Amino acid sequence: MKVIDVSELAPQPVTDEGAKGTTVRWLIGKPEGAPNFAMRLFELEPGGATPLHEHAWEHEVFVLDGSLQVVAEQGPVEVSAGAAVLVMPGERHQFRNAGNAVARMLCVIPHPAQG
Amino acid sequence: MKVIDVSELAPQPVTDEGAKGTTVRWLIGKPEGAPNFAMRLFELEPGGATPLHEHAWEHEVFVLDGSLQVVAEQGPVEVSAGAAVLVMPGERHQFRNAGNAVARMLCVIPHPAQG
Repeated sequence: MKVIDVSELAPQPVTDEGAKGTTVRWLIGKPEGAPNFAMRLFELEPGGATPLHEHAWEHEVFVLDGSLQVVAEQGPVEVSAGAAVLVMPGERHQFRNAGNAVARMLCVIPHPAQG
Repeated sequence: MKVIDVSELAPQPVTDEGAKGTTVRWLIGKPEGAPNFAMRLFELEPGGATPLHEHAWEHEVFVLDGSLQVVAEQGPVEVSAGAAVLVMPGERHQFRNAGNAVARMLCVIPHPAQG
């Protein structure tokens, strides 16, 4: 067993093109010995956003604090603390903080496929 | 994309032998189209516990509210809101609520292997 407390990890700015006001902490991943998937915590300042992009893997998200707009195939959807969001592989998506408070979400992704 | 709010789901009692005072809500799983892993939310009353057991798959846990004792190979460890816990495949483990408040945690598991 490994225990990782959010407060032990420094937030790292998300620098992908199109991202703003967003940091990530990798809570559990391959370095901790996770066999299949990784758990990350994202924090979005008011006005912050993740990139509008798509990729071959899913996201399983849980909103911890605040509110977020999720842009996906069905257009922007408002979600707030206590909501889970499944973004499918290949689905174009973005998370935006349109509120006045910091928003935090967990995002779980599978490890990259081995070539 | 699918959005599932915790408040829409009725908590189901965990009835495995050894469990007490614990409910589960399956937020994201195969029925929602999740390709690889499932996200569940567990709620443990004060005095509640999950079974002391082991299985061939990992747990990736995030404590949302309250405090929990995690019993695993290194003995009981206290964790509270904001802690992530990785339980390895084959590791004997149990989550207990030794506090006075309800504790809630997310627990992500891989889908069962196809035979």
